Amino acid sequence: MSSSDFPARLTEALGPDTVFTAPDDIAPWLADWRGIYRGHAQAVVRPRTVDDVSRALALCQQAGVPVVPRGGNTGLCGGATPDAQPVNVVLSLDRMNAVRSLDTIANTMVAEAGCILGNLRRTAAEANRLLPLSLAAEDSCQIGGNLSTNAGGVNVVRYGMTRELVLGVEAVLPNGEVFNGLRTLRKDNTGYDLKQLLIGAEGTLGVITAASLRLFPRTDTRCVVLAAVESPKQALELFELLFERCGARVQAYEFFTSACLDLVLAHAEGVQEPFAQRYPSYVLMELADSTDEAALNALLEQVIGDALERELCLDAVVSASLAQLHALWKLREEISEAQRADGPHLKHDISLPIEHIPAFMVSMEARLRARSADIRPFIFGHFGDGNLHYNLSRPAGAPREWAAQDGEAFTDEVLDEVVRYGGSISAEHGIGQLKRHAFLHTKDPLELRLMREIKRVFDPAGIMNPGKLL
Amino acid sequence: MSSSDFPARLTEALGPDTVFTAPDDIAPWLADWRGIYRGHAQAVVRPRTVDDVSRALALCQQAGVPVVPRGGNTGLCGGATPDAQPVNVVLSLDRMNAVRSLDTIANTMVAEAGCILGNLRRTAAEANRLLPLSLAAEDSCQIGGNLSTNAGGVNVVRYGMTRELVLGVEAVLPNGEVFNGLRTLRKDNTGYDLKQLLIGAEGTLGVITAASLRLFPRTDTRCVVLAAVESPKQALELFELLFERCGARVQAYEFFTSACLDLVLAHAEGVQEPFAQRYPSYVLMELADSTDEAALNALLEQVIGDALERELCLDAVVSASLAQLHALWKLREEISEAQRADGPHLKHDISLPIEHIPAFMVSMEARLRARSADIRPFIFGHFGDGNLHYNLSRPAGAPREWAAQDGEAFTDEVLDEVVRYGGSISAEHGIGQLKRHAFLHTKDPLELRLMREIKRVFDPAGIMNPGKLL
Repeated sequence: MSSSDFPARLTEALGPDTVFTAPDDIAPWLADWRGIYRGHAQAVVRPRTVDDVSRALALCQQAGVPVVPRGGNTGLCGGATPDAQPVNVVLSLDRMNAVRSLDTIANTMVAEAGCILGNLRRTAAEANRLLPLSLAAEDSCQIGGNLSTNAGGVNVVRYGMTRELVLGVEAVLPNGEVFNGLRTLRKDNTGYDLKQLLIGAEGTLGVITAASLRLFPRTDTRCVVLAAVESPKQALELFELLFERCGARVQAYEFFTSACLDLVLAHAEGVQEPFAQRYPSYVLMELADSTDEAALNALLEQVIGDALERELCLDAVVSASLAQLHALWKLREEISEAQRADGPHLKHDISLPIEHIPAFMVSMEARLRARSADIRPFIFGHFGDGNLHYNLSRPAGAPREWAAQDGEAFTDEVLDEVVRYGGSISAEHGIGQLKRHAFLHTKDPLELRLMREIKRVFDPAGIMNPGKLL
Repeated sequence: MSSSDFPARLTEALGPDTVFTAPDDIAPWLADWRGIYRGHAQAVVRPRTVDDVSRALALCQQAGVPVVPRGGNTGLCGGATPDAQPVNVVLSLDRMNAVRSLDTIANTMVAEAGCILGNLRRTAAEANRLLPLSLAAEDSCQIGGNLSTNAGGVNVVRYGMTRELVLGVEAVLPNGEVFNGLRTLRKDNTGYDLKQLLIGAEGTLGVITAASLRLFPRTDTRCVVLAAVESPKQALELFELLFERCGARVQAYEFFTSACLDLVLAHAEGVQEPFAQRYPSYVLMELADSTDEAALNALLEQVIGDALERELCLDAVVSASLAQLHALWKLREEISEAQRADGPHLKHDISLPIEHIPAFMVSMEARLRARSADIRPFIFGHFGDGNLHYNLSRPAGAPREWAAQDGEAFTDEVLDEVVRYGGSISAEHGIGQLKRHAFLHTKDPLELRLMREIKRVFDPAGIMNPGKLL
């Protein structure tokens, strides 16, 4: 069959308002949101039902046509952008956006893959429940993509990654078979937990069409502390105290350097220097509970008082109002955007055994300075999870093209040092196209072999998301 | 090679004090602890190192010899007992019992497979941390077996199953290759999460030799409430209130019927009728926190007061001392032993979508009564997880042999009703030999096919734990 016949067969099976082939119609589906990756496709399919997905995939497998599943297109690694093959089909889940059920007794929500995460969070809140997955892109990203990339975000320290919030998965395999794993059971020890393979597979094993998600009690009582710390080592000691004393109330423990604060103050609107003097680094902690505010504040004041007394931080400010809470968070949240405004840069989403972060920070900076004395590292992230966004901006005076021209050598230094410390080259962003080379060169060959053989079990024709991950 | 040569080869490779073949030496390894299953083996291997395990497995695969991994032998499904083949080798992990590391900053512990769970809990407590996995057999069971069966226990409602406590796994594949997945990272999105397959595989894919486990803050402030409830429906409504108001403090929510209480009062020492009158059912809740006792008690008194006022329970007693806390727990913990004392019975470890438990309880009992009006159900379990131990004792007047003679038809009724409600035929005990038939007849054929193909990826020679699970 010539490739020009194939869209016609898809259209015949799925209807003309589901299959798009006109260049103008499909252009928006061929690039990632940052415009870094661009690919080709012969058609975009926008199914409305699991059955649509099943028929589309079965046709693609029969014809050997590669399929690129697409969620909200907010990924940072090009995992949902087609590669250069003109024969690709992009399969967008955006029209499968129903909440199939929500149960406040079972504390579960069954949502289709195309549901926007922020909408699901609001739906849960209206039912007096919390869906804890929260990240910068939550009003654009889709839950199917969150599962496929095992998304992280700001509340992982308390609630875990997306994987830990999933009770069941519905997916379609490349041959069109439907994996009916949409259970809501908290306990089910009946064989290998297959959904765990689909979560984090980046669309290389099949297409996730729906998920059963765990809901939690709302924790509307929130309190934020910004603490100034001398060093990553002090940030760790403070974390240990906070964790011991406040336990599950700790739902964010973020870190950023003074350099990040400079960047935010330079580029963001409505932000202020938080203390009378500048300190080397800062941690932002959020605590939350379902009980009254007075109890939470009292606990936090006590712990911060102890921390100051035991010299586990240099200074601290506790949010006294919701406005102040948001103002403190803004200092952390605006870093990415401020760095974008500063110019092109290198992003590294790494994780480390948390106890090794202080040593890593020292040796990593030494390696980078040896290569360029003027390199500008902006280091921030989810410190409580051992997850740093170790980003590098061009050395003072270097041209804007620096990242594209000289970046690879710096990235190699970062990833090599991470591996040396037993860390991960991708903590929460996944592999996609961006980190495929590094992934294939750093992963244990035994694990790569097992992954490739598992890929063949699910996708023997090799049509799922080519050029990504494996 | 004749089978009589094979132990000699094992001995040559591993040393005489590692390989046992004398009938008296190996007899204790051929039966499960309840004496229900009994099998055969040509040798028992007790390795001291990962390298020992690797060499033993490689030799077994070369010779096509089946391997039965064995932990603490506390399972209820015969998963660690060899089948009838005389050629089996039992591989016991009991000598690999070192705690390789414990880090209170990273909140991780790396333990070898043969470590006794109770010892690990005490080691964590000495370091001012909590390893939350807790179950009746904790002073005999081994952590490797806990991972292989994805053990549950009493704290799942707060901390999740074993799977959720594991950050990394070290395992040996049947060909002797070592899977070095002993990471302690909280976030690591680099490809398929292979350790998830080894967890809960019941030794059918390889041998787990060590695990990285998550530790939590100690929650020494504990409070227990025993509440009397009219029905499972009321127990659910009470759970909803408790969950909303106390959130993560809820670490156990257990249920038992009046019949279970009768049994405990008849057979256990030092137990008392908890209320002045008898009620249809009871729930035992445990709350725990890392803060002071006064705050926890005040919260609980308030919630229980509201529950009584809103008629979500009939009566309640709050533990006023540690002695009273243990006395209340005893009413729940002694049920299994009391039922054993009552005579042989049928155990069903089931889970249900929690919202369907009330309807299930009604229709299930009707089905059983239709078969035998005098059947004696003893229903208890981890209600907050949707997990019931729905056990059946012989009808009044029936002989002790009833369970063995007539049990199968009753079990079929129970499992069929569970499947009808979308539940699981094995919530936390696994499949082993006991539930293999039911598993193969109730699991979705697509899932079975995927599991078998994954089994072939890890264990192409099919030597791992034959006759169990798949």
